[in-house]
Amino acid sequence: GWKGAPEIRTADGWSFKPRGRMQVDLAAVDTPVGATDARGGLKTEFRRIYLGVDGKIPGGFAYRVEADVANNSVELTDVYLTYGTGPLSVTAGQIKPFWSLDEMTSDLFTSFMERAAFAQAFGFERRVGLSAQYRRGDLLLQAGVFGDNAGDLLDDSNNAVSLDGRVVWMPKLGDTQLHLAASGHWRDPNDPAALGRYRARPFAHTTDVRLVDTGLIDVASERGIGLEGAVIAGPFHAAGEGYWHRVNRTGPADPTFFGGYAEVGMVLTPGDRRGYKDGGFDRLKPTKPITAGGVGAFEVNARYDHLDLNDGGIVGGRQQAALISLVWAPVDYIRINANYGKLWVGDARVATATGDRDYTADTFGLRTQVDF
Amino acid sequence: GWKGAPEIRTADGWSFKPRGRMQVDLAAVDTPVGATDARGGLKTEFRRIYLGVDGKIPGGFAYRVEADVANNSVELTDVYLTYGTGPLSVTAGQIKPFWSLDEMTSDLFTSFMERAAFAQAFGFERRVGLSAQYRRGDLLLQAGVFGDNAGDLLDDSNNAVSLDGRVVWMPKLGDTQLHLAASGHWRDPNDPAALGRYRARPFAHTTDVRLVDTGLIDVASERGIGLEGAVIAGPFHAAGEGYWHRVNRTGPADPTFFGGYAEVGMVLTPGDRRGYKDGGFDRLKPTKPITAGGVGAFEVNARYDHLDLNDGGIVGGRQQAALISLVWAPVDYIRINANYGKLWVGDARVATATGDRDYTADTFGLRTQVDF
Amino acid sequence: GWKGAPEIRTADGWSFKPRGRMQVDLAAVDTPVGATDARGGLKTEFRRIYLGVDGKIPGGFAYRVEADVANNSVELTDVYLTYGTGPLSVTAGQIKPFWSLDEMTSDLFTSFMERAAFAQAFGFERRVGLSAQYRRGDLLLQAGVFGDNAGDLLDDSNNAVSLDGRVVWMPKLGDTQLHLAASGHWRDPNDPAALGRYRARPFAHTTDVRLVDTGLIDVASERGIGLEGAVIAGPFHAAGEGYWHRVNRTGPADPTFFGGYAEVGMVLTPGDRRGYKDGGFDRLKPTKPITAGGVGAFEVNARYDHLDLNDGGIVGGRQQAALISLVWAPVDYIRINANYGKLWVGDARVATATGDRDYTADTFGLRTQVDF
Repeated sequence: GWKGAPEIRTADGWSFKPRGRMQVDLAAVDTPVGATDARGGLKTEFRRIYLGVDGKIPGGFAYRVEADVANNSVELTDVYLTYGTGPLSVTAGQIKPFWSLDEMTSDLFTSFMERAAFAQAFGFERRVGLSAQYRRGDLLLQAGVFGDNAGDLLDDSNNAVSLDGRVVWMPKLGDTQLHLAASGHWRDPNDPAALGRYRARPFAHTTDVRLVDTGLIDVASERGIGLEGAVIAGPFHAAGEGYWHRVNRTGPADPTFFGGYAEVGMVLTPGDRRGYKDGGFDRLKPTKPITAGGVGAFEVNARYDHLDLNDGGIVGGRQQAALISLVWAPVDYIRINANYGKLWVGDARVATATGDRDYTADTFGLRTQVDF
Repeated sequence: GWKGAPEIRTADGWSFKPRGRMQVDLAAVDTPVGATDARGGLKTEFRRIYLGVDGKIPGGFAYRVEADVANNSVELTDVYLTYGTGPLSVTAGQIKPFWSLDEMTSDLFTSFMERAAFAQAFGFERRVGLSAQYRRGDLLLQAGVFGDNAGDLLDDSNNAVSLDGRVVWMPKLGDTQLHLAASGHWRDPNDPAALGRYRARPFAHTTDVRLVDTGLIDVASERGIGLEGAVIAGPFHAAGEGYWHRVNRTGPADPTFFGGYAEVGMVLTPGDRRGYKDGGFDRLKPTKPITAGGVGAFEVNARYDHLDLNDGGIVGGRQQAALISLVWAPVDYIRINANYGKLWVGDARVATATGDRDYTADTFGLRTQVDF
Repeated sequence: GWKGAPEIRTADGWSFKPRGRMQVDLAAVDTPVGATDARGGLKTEFRRIYLGVDGKIPGGFAYRVEADVANNSVELTDVYLTYGTGPLSVTAGQIKPFWSLDEMTSDLFTSFMERAAFAQAFGFERRVGLSAQYRRGDLLLQAGVFGDNAGDLLDDSNNAVSLDGRVVWMPKLGDTQLHLAASGHWRDPNDPAALGRYRARPFAHTTDVRLVDTGLIDVASERGIGLEGAVIAGPFHAAGEGYWHRVNRTGPADPTFFGGYAEVGMVLTPGDRRGYKDGGFDRLKPTKPITAGGVGAFEVNARYDHLDLNDGGIVGGRQQAALISLVWAPVDYIRINANYGKLWVGDARVATATGDRDYTADTFGLRTQVDF
């Protein structure tokens, strides 16, 4: 088989496939004078450079080992061994702990270059742990106990534990794909000195500036609740999420931060539609790629994104954004994504040169992507 | 061919095979109050994540390039080019300098999750150099001249040189595999300011605490002598080693540290036995894997491990350990290893809260492993 | 197909091939007492350990993702996506910005272990950008706009821009390959505080000492002009280059540094010759490799290398070198390269123990190389 790269298989159930992706971004943020120093200028970067392998071993085993080397360093991404012969499968290793439709959708297939602000602000990341998944018909149950991200586990004193679970109902009604889901999360850093920081970049990863940012606050434990809904009907899709992130603190009041988004999109090329698979959006495959004399697939998306980091005495700021994207997939494994966003920030962490903390910003991005 | 991953070959002698391994550990150390701070708690980590390739080139050449990325960094492991058409082969690159049965056995196949304490204490590591191996019948001769580990060679002032050799006699008497070996080692750091530190973790790698530890001492040169013996008879095996590590110092007395172990083990599943190959233990392959309706292979092992870092005025401590392990290989390339150990430490580097340096500790570990 | 490693292809135009290289060096520099401390001693290192993949996607797309892990770190090398169905191709990602024959020739095929001193001194490196290449007949046009090396783009304040172009005329006259080329380069660091440092190692990479070195100077912008000429006639080849690197500074005079070399070489084994492809030297393939009962290919090269870092009030030093190399390729993908060089340094950055800055040095190197 060939899935961007050769998948080598044997008759008795072995398989092996190289994996990888490259995302080259050009992006910029335009804020009022003084708000981001000189750091938001037009700039290029490798957003992600993944290399890895997928394998299957007879008896119901599968593994993935993959890492991101975009920052001239190794950051392990999915690294796991799975076992399962029926609807139930068990996984040991590092995966995403079942957070949010936007997070569980591969960054290869998200509507916008950067995910919802809350996915960044609330520290969604892969973690090492033991988890199980049960799928029967339209129902998907996912739950696990996790330590921390592999990179943070290098610290000898890190004994963090989290419990994460998600329920997805994903019926297909005729040609229409529905997605309704809820997830719950609890994390104990197991460290009296633990600090947390909740913040998000302005939808451009080339800058390290976060306009909204709680600063470091002490964290006794964290609880999160997420709700997800989506529908794909022919060329159209809509999606929305809300996520409540409560930070339990030893002394002060416990703030509950909130983030969410609502999105609509439409595939412009006839016969094409967004993919959906196992609780997340999947690849947009042009029915008429440029190799078949077509123009590939085009898709436009619009999203309203909201993040509120003001609560319980913490003033991290409020950020609203209107985002539009134009996606072009000339063939299955190549994708160009152009983004524009308008941000409204209140109580911003970063003040303008005149000391103003309520202002607007513009963000622009262009991604060239190939995966295999 | 398929060896966990596809080995692609041509009729005229080319071959190419991806390589990799994943070890996810859960481990803990329980020591008296104060001895390890909070750092020994139950904790998970990626012990090893290797990715690499093996290749053969017509004319007698073979190469391997492999690295460990478990720590979100790259640590080159085996990286070499070998040439040899007969019993003699020559190797340029980074390999293990012919130390000890436990060290020369791949970490995929060792009896316990962590190797003998002396293998860690005396700084066994891979080094870049030129070496030769001669094998005829039951005799294996290995010798080389080495610089340092590739990671240490980045330091401009590192001009260390070591000479290492090993002789293995490995006759097969009927169904019984014998292994008798001796190795000798000499190393000159070529640096008047060179310091050495001899220490070992308490058989759990999730902690960075070493209960026995000489601290930094000046090192003019090092000499090591190792003796190895092992036997595999049907489902049973036994193994033992002793290693004397002498540190030549410019001023003070020259200490000789000692480490060793004695081990017995038994494969519980009928028809299965430990593998042996070229001077080291090899893969435990279940004759009835779970894909053939069996339970895979089960093996139990018990080891007494000894490390003495007290000599010549140095008081690094003495550590004795009784270790047991239960290994389960459901199929050839998957392996679960559960370990328990009881440690007796004297003159420990790390004192308890009451100042006691003679105490016991318990260690526990569980490894999930896949390789290809 | 097989090109050192298997290239897996489909009938409809997909292809996938692993890539890699290993260079193990032994090298030394001998300078007057005091000039390099103890740091030039005989020393080994992995010069390059590349791992990566090449792929083709139907429709005219091709990609490469590769990184150097020799320093126990990840340094992205060629990472790009190319599109082109005719003489014109467009590339997004990190590549070499069309500098110099010696630089554009893969380090697998250069005449000497280290490239011309000017290629190092003037900061030739891969950069992330957008570029185009047009090839028709004997003419090759290359141009692009680039940011910086991927590793430097991690710095949030890096907004450097460069424009680079090169014209190559490469006619084949009977059996004789000609190469005439010119390149032009301009770079703006877009940073008022930008500093540059122009320096070169003494043709041995195992040392970090640079005998010639301008030290850090402020840089407003840089302009470079390069001229290239080469000829391959049967077993003989000759090549020469000159490169003028002008540094525009805000206050002081603008220095123009110069570097260049002239080289002749001869392949000793009958029927063998240097390869040439697309504006650079290519693989030396023995017609009688050792697998065919031959001795492989032998080549000798001699080069005069010149670097002048004295100009406009800057005294970085002048370095001249006479270099000879003996290359042995027993088979296509294995290569041994032995180098000796004599250096004459004036106004050296590093003075001898007696304070002398005009002296000679000797350099020696031996490389063992395999690639796939």
